[in-house]
Amino acid sequence: MLDYSALTVMAEATDTSAVQDVVNSTMFGTEGVWFLIGAALVFFMQCGFAMVETGFTRAKNAGNIIMKNLMDFCIGTVVFTLLGFGLMCGEDALFGLVGLPNFGIFTDFSNFPWHNFVFNLVFCATAATIVSGAMAERTKFLSYCIYSGLISLVVYPIEAHWIWGGGWLSQIGFIDFAGSCAIHMVGGIAALIGAAFVGARIGKFDKNGKPRAILGHSVTLGALGVFILWFGWYGFNGAAAGNADYLGQIFLTTTIAPAIATCTTMVFTWLKNGKPDVSMCLNASLAGLVGVTAGCADVDALGSAIIGLVSGLLVVFGVWLLDYKLKIDDPVGAVAVHLMNGVWGTFAVGLFATGNGQDGIVGLFYNLEEGAKQLGIQAIGVLAVAAWTTVTMTIIFWGIKHTIGLRASREEEIKGLDSTEHGLPSAYADFVPATDTYLSVVDTPAVDPAEVVEPVEIAVPVKHVKAQSVASDAGVKMTKIDIIANQEKFEPLKHALSAIGITGMTVSHVMGCGMQKGSTEFYRGVPVDARLLPKMKVEIVVCKVPVEKVVEVAKKALYTGKIGDGKIFVYDVENVIKIRTGEEAYDALQDNE
Amino acid sequence: MLDYSALTVMAEATDTSAVQDVVNSTMFGTEGVWFLIGAALVFFMQCGFAMVETGFTRAKNAGNIIMKNLMDFCIGTVVFTLLGFGLMCGEDALFGLVGLPNFGIFTDFSNFPWHNFVFNLVFCATAATIVSGAMAERTKFLSYCIYSGLISLVVYPIEAHWIWGGGWLSQIGFIDFAGSCAIHMVGGIAALIGAAFVGARIGKFDKNGKPRAILGHSVTLGALGVFILWFGWYGFNGAAAGNADYLGQIFLTTTIAPAIATCTTMVFTWLKNGKPDVSMCLNASLAGLVGVTAGCADVDALGSAIIGLVSGLLVVFGVWLLDYKLKIDDPVGAVAVHLMNGVWGTFAVGLFATGNGQDGIVGLFYNLEEGAKQLGIQAIGVLAVAAWTTVTMTIIFWGIKHTIGLRASREEEIKGLDSTEHGLPSAYADFVPATDTYLSVVDTPAVDPAEVVEPVEIAVPVKHVKAQSVASDAGVKMTKIDIIANQEKFEPLKHALSAIGITGMTVSHVMGCGMQKGSTEFYRGVPVDARLLPKMKVEIVVCKVPVEKVVEVAKKALYTGKIGDGKIFVYDVENVIKIRTGEEAYDALQDNE
Amino acid sequence: MLDYSALTVMAEATDTSAVQDVVNSTMFGTEGVWFLIGAALVFFMQCGFAMVETGFTRAKNAGNIIMKNLMDFCIGTVVFTLLGFGLMCGEDALFGLVGLPNFGIFTDFSNFPWHNFVFNLVFCATAATIVSGAMAERTKFLSYCIYSGLISLVVYPIEAHWIWGGGWLSQIGFIDFAGSCAIHMVGGIAALIGAAFVGARIGKFDKNGKPRAILGHSVTLGALGVFILWFGWYGFNGAAAGNADYLGQIFLTTTIAPAIATCTTMVFTWLKNGKPDVSMCLNASLAGLVGVTAGCADVDALGSAIIGLVSGLLVVFGVWLLDYKLKIDDPVGAVAVHLMNGVWGTFAVGLFATGNGQDGIVGLFYNLEEGAKQLGIQAIGVLAVAAWTTVTMTIIFWGIKHTIGLRASREEEIKGLDSTEHGLPSAYADFVPATDTYLSVVDTPAVDPAEVVEPVEIAVPVKHVKAQSVASDAGVKMTKIDIIANQEKFEPLKHALSAIGITGMTVSHVMGCGMQKGSTEFYRGVPVDARLLPKMKVEIVVCKVPVEKVVEVAKKALYTGKIGDGKIFVYDVENVIKIRTGEEAYDALQDNE
Repeated sequence: MLDYSALTVMAEATDTSAVQDVVNSTMFGTEGVWFLIGAALVFFMQCGFAMVETGFTRAKNAGNIIMKNLMDFCIGTVVFTLLGFGLMCGEDALFGLVGLPNFGIFTDFSNFPWHNFVFNLVFCATAATIVSGAMAERTKFLSYCIYSGLISLVVYPIEAHWIWGGGWLSQIGFIDFAGSCAIHMVGGIAALIGAAFVGARIGKFDKNGKPRAILGHSVTLGALGVFILWFGWYGFNGAAAGNADYLGQIFLTTTIAPAIATCTTMVFTWLKNGKPDVSMCLNASLAGLVGVTAGCADVDALGSAIIGLVSGLLVVFGVWLLDYKLKIDDPVGAVAVHLMNGVWGTFAVGLFATGNGQDGIVGLFYNLEEGAKQLGIQAIGVLAVAAWTTVTMTIIFWGIKHTIGLRASREEEIKGLDSTEHGLPSAYADFVPATDTYLSVVDTPAVDPAEVVEPVEIAVPVKHVKAQSVASDAGVKMTKIDIIANQEKFEPLKHALSAIGITGMTVSHVMGCGMQKGSTEFYRGVPVDARLLPKMKVEIVVCKVPVEKVVEVAKKALYTGKIGDGKIFVYDVENVIKIRTGEEAYDALQDNE
Repeated sequence: MLDYSALTVMAEATDTSAVQDVVNSTMFGTEGVWFLIGAALVFFMQCGFAMVETGFTRAKNAGNIIMKNLMDFCIGTVVFTLLGFGLMCGEDALFGLVGLPNFGIFTDFSNFPWHNFVFNLVFCATAATIVSGAMAERTKFLSYCIYSGLISLVVYPIEAHWIWGGGWLSQIGFIDFAGSCAIHMVGGIAALIGAAFVGARIGKFDKNGKPRAILGHSVTLGALGVFILWFGWYGFNGAAAGNADYLGQIFLTTTIAPAIATCTTMVFTWLKNGKPDVSMCLNASLAGLVGVTAGCADVDALGSAIIGLVSGLLVVFGVWLLDYKLKIDDPVGAVAVHLMNGVWGTFAVGLFATGNGQDGIVGLFYNLEEGAKQLGIQAIGVLAVAAWTTVTMTIIFWGIKHTIGLRASREEEIKGLDSTEHGLPSAYADFVPATDTYLSVVDTPAVDPAEVVEPVEIAVPVKHVKAQSVASDAGVKMTKIDIIANQEKFEPLKHALSAIGITGMTVSHVMGCGMQKGSTEFYRGVPVDARLLPKMKVEIVVCKVPVEKVVEVAKKALYTGKIGDGKIFVYDVENVIKIRTGEEAYDALQDNE
Repeated sequence: MLDYSALTVMAEATDTSAVQDVVNSTMFGTEGVWFLIGAALVFFMQCGFAMVETGFTRAKNAGNIIMKNLMDFCIGTVVFTLLGFGLMCGEDALFGLVGLPNFGIFTDFSNFPWHNFVFNLVFCATAATIVSGAMAERTKFLSYCIYSGLISLVVYPIEAHWIWGGGWLSQIGFIDFAGSCAIHMVGGIAALIGAAFVGARIGKFDKNGKPRAILGHSVTLGALGVFILWFGWYGFNGAAAGNADYLGQIFLTTTIAPAIATCTTMVFTWLKNGKPDVSMCLNASLAGLVGVTAGCADVDALGSAIIGLVSGLLVVFGVWLLDYKLKIDDPVGAVAVHLMNGVWGTFAVGLFATGNGQDGIVGLFYNLEEGAKQLGIQAIGVLAVAAWTTVTMTIIFWGIKHTIGLRASREEEIKGLDSTEHGLPSAYADFVPATDTYLSVVDTPAVDPAEVVEPVEIAVPVKHVKAQSVASDAGVKMTKIDIIANQEKFEPLKHALSAIGITGMTVSHVMGCGMQKGSTEFYRGVPVDARLLPKMKVEIVVCKVPVEKVVEVAKKALYTGKIGDGKIFVYDVENVIKIRTGEEAYDALQDNE
């Protein structure tokens, strides 16, 4: 007789691993929900890049940078749909060199790998967008669009085929889990070549080639971008996880590496420049993330910590190298972050892979023999991809430069690309822009000093003229007193003047330029030229209150004995009219003097 | 005897489709995890809307717009909880016209469909928030709160019942997968009616009705908002996906349509205005997203590309239509984005649905007969929902306008709603605000030109008086020289002055208004009035150095021969006092002259 | 004979609950995918905190606050890895007081609970980061780093062990689902102690101890942060959900509470101060979220609504309490939001838990007896954790204060921590900063009023001098006219001047200080000192056009009859030179006069 209870037991013993397979295939892999959520997070990184790049450059180019980041993705989508995806994920051909283009997205949509397309598209756009920061503030928009189309059309798809599309590098065992090499190194190399071809921004280097700090217009936007990027990176590194377990490991390594990198840079810049540098630390977080990208699923906590430590140093070194040695102007540090750490991260897999990760490979520190082999494979990959990228990007930028041109005109650059390229008078129309002090005299020697060699003291004797009292038309002597002083002295000054009966005044913000030198600050390791110091200008017109009294009181309120206490200027006034009452001269001043 | 091995095999052959059902019901549908993650992403779109609307309007209203977007959601939550959800998702009544309100959320919480409530709430809030942009910068806050409460209380819930709550439109087969019609068209119609009722902002149209560009205060915030919206849209369109497969399709169409739309607008504005317009391209991304929303689960790559192409053109046309034809002031382009593309997207389902999508319907281009029928159904839906929305919103805005009033006073609008409505002196207290040049003279004819018709040349002959040297009280002639010039000339000027011994100067930012015309720029298709040009003012006081020398050197440093080179003004100075040392006149100037 | 069909049926009847277990364990719990997605959302909250804190403080400290928020997380990661995680989640020891530290993350990585580590790390960082807002704008960066390390190293891990790590509070049934107590109250207490130790910012209280409003520099960044926090909170509260069902409940309560709190605060501030306060409403959203955090999985819609209602009142009360009673300066309202609502939320579980939630507990309103017991347990937890936090944080801040010091120097605070702590001259280098008017005279009595008691009227008789016409060197009388007026009058003025032939002018933004008082505004319940009002200064130089004509026309254009219409000043000009042509005096003015 049939033992139903036994059957029941067996049926109840649902095969867990089979169930797990179904669950995993719904969640993970190239048809999974998490795969898509990860892709959405990677899309969001476009926002992060846009914010970082905009924040770390000048306000007059903000709209242009936004536009470049937006079009990166949109143009990239068009060309990746038409050709790129086929080259990357199509059937392997030419011995692993390229995928065969196909138009399945149009001809066989039902069977088209939608998830995979979306996933690879957002990764492709990431590679493309890295370049915009390095070439910011002086590249022609049209030229940028062309570059952007070409990298997504051919350059990225082909090397990505080698690594992820079943091409020759994947066949020999090259490991780059989430793209230290395929995305970041490639983007970084393109950034370096592009920045070199387009040349430095006006004012970045002085006539002796010494770098000058050009401050970004919004550190908060830059920081926002970094936080968004880090957040998105959990998708970037995690999207390809094979199951929930590996995903946990990836999240952990993707957290530890950037944290350690940031701490390292903080300590390093603190020791080196005397102060922890904000924007370098923000760069360091990204550097750590780039560094751990290749090995995120294969290294452990210790490995990711060491990767982060090195990344934190590399990014500082990279910025220094470009500024001081290569003399290449990379406004946002894209080369230091993506190229240097992309290379480092790709090699690091061969050093720190534990063998227990998703790819099962072992690095040098865990198995000398296998690790050495893996390291060799990683080196082959880095060299091959770097060579491909260097050659193709050089051709592309060279071609653009010698046809339609790569660089905006001098006038456009000075005026800002927002208005010249996009007809946007200002990205921040409601704010008063600060005078741009970065426009170097290097290439505009305005006055030949030789013309003025004669000592002016001798050449132009001071005319001593008898003072003379000049009254206004209204018959009373009125005097204007301009006080230039430090802003923090406004309240004491206001109270002091109020005490002698003066309540009406006009205050404005000016920049003072004189003997007082700003202390030497370091921004991203480069000294900041701080000759223009913020001051306030207080304008008063008096009639009843004697000028001497005002001067005396103001001096007392403003005096500290330090250089930079300010100056008081006295002028004659011909008349004053109060609009509301029509009163003139003496009467017009009676409410606020 | 029982063959256990056979049993084992059978048990192992876990019924995959049954397992898949369990997995899907955990992940998808109205009780799924992804459904909630999608809802969270849709919530995040509130942030996107807030940033877009704030960025594209003026700084003096930033706090007010933030507040409107925040309260949209919060007031919406209250009224949707109390009544809206019942009207939308309650038991169908009145032949599909309305759901029966119920208080299950309070009385039977354990069985209440939590996921569904959250999901529908965030969608409802999206419809409500679209309006705030179109009515920005001149609507009374209280009136806005009332409008916002009413749309979430009745207007949206009832039409959403028709479409998604089991109402009559869903019964006849109307398809609007994620809300091109139910959310965007409805929000867009409300925006149009609201903007028409409240009237244009002061200065938007000149006295001939010609539109003038009023620039937003932060293109970067606007762009941030667009990126956040696009990111959130993967949840908006994807949340209702039935399984991981359809989700992939949705992600793909939700990527292609906005990308193509953005490229289209870029090319179009480039050709039409000579330059690719940043803020229109940002609008275009949203337009493409709105356009594909109804059909995201039913169209393929080609369909979504065509939808995007049309959306990219529609948004430009829509902005032009409102500015130049309807003369309705929609500061952020809400009508062009949401109304026009909402309608287009709803029809597009009837054109491009392939039949293989989640809803299984077929559009005109895939099956003439079925498609024509579907298109007819779509038309019925659009018309019915548009009629409902138009009637109810007209009543609401008319009612508000004629009771408590819809529009802020002229003074409030000029001063800005931040301070007048919320007591917030400035949303950006630490920055100097630019003079608002948009305050038109249309309605404030200050001076009757007739009063000044007599030729001034004749009326007031120039007095030629003999020049006279006036020295200061201190017995030496001191002179103030004000130089107004282009900002980019600061460095050359500074160096030139330094070469003749002048190092002390005060620099400030001013706006110049004169002969020099700004080039004609187009912002969102409307010419920008750029009469006020940014200039710098450098103030110097000299004693020892002769004025002629300063003028000569400054002229050389600033000369380019183009209009706008600037002017130099010379004034007499009565005295100068150096605060730190107390030195006066000649002595006070010895460190920086 | 074996009935195979029966077997098939049985096998097909896949055991749903077993399958559901597998699905749930993949998605939820300490090894689940959603657990990690939630953790990523919680990480993103770091971005929200950074934006809120930066936006609500001043521009001169923006980089410093960004840096503190970034380092919070990075330093926290290091110390939590080294020791914190062990103390929190290690094997329970000392009768539930502490977990045993272990180095499994380094020694046994394969079996290390990755998900759990990441999850707990991001929660830990949240507790630490709350403090930075309360101590913003005056705390030494080094001291902050030390504090931050210590809270993540010991303070948080130990109390979190009690509550979530299997410690004594969890053993007696204390419920704090997502951390009202463990995170927010702890962070809030640390914030209160820190703010008290470091003292108020210069200018926050006047000499009578009356609080003064110090406006944040970007309400939009603050709002962005709040939206990001709310979005992230779905992960914060939801990450620990046991299944999709509870997750839905959590999303619902996490939506209702903040929405009601925000509405409550809007109505309350509207009634109390006459206007709905933007930044208080943004705080209220956070307050509601904090309030519902402990009970999000155990209360229902009604419970969460009541929690939100109370939170909305509490946050206003909290800000008032610190400003007016405790006189503790908490720039961003961290104490009101996190401490007060953290305590409230923890007790609320004991009041409103329905018994059907994830923890199965019942509150006072649903079962008197059990509820009273639960409430007692909640009280024990609050007291114990508060005591622990108070003692340890007092020691920490006391220790820092008396060794390396807690507070930046007066000069550093006035200059801003960006430049003094980080060498960043400005976080917004391209914008003109407004004069900081918050620098109180309280501690800098500049001039003794006693010195000027003599009536100036008597002391210094006005000299009536005969007016005298002074012409320039060029032989023509030129006159400068400065018009100070309201900005919104620019267009009428420009048109009026244009009508009499004057088109050249220089416009700048100034701050006027005079009789005209700003209306009393309330910012966060504190009156705003608005003595400096924004004005424009229009400078014209005329020769041909008579001064009287200009004055007459300007008066007409500017006149409204209200105080604040402005003044016109008339000065003599010695010469004018047009740079482009070299023309002087009369000729130089012919294009724009």
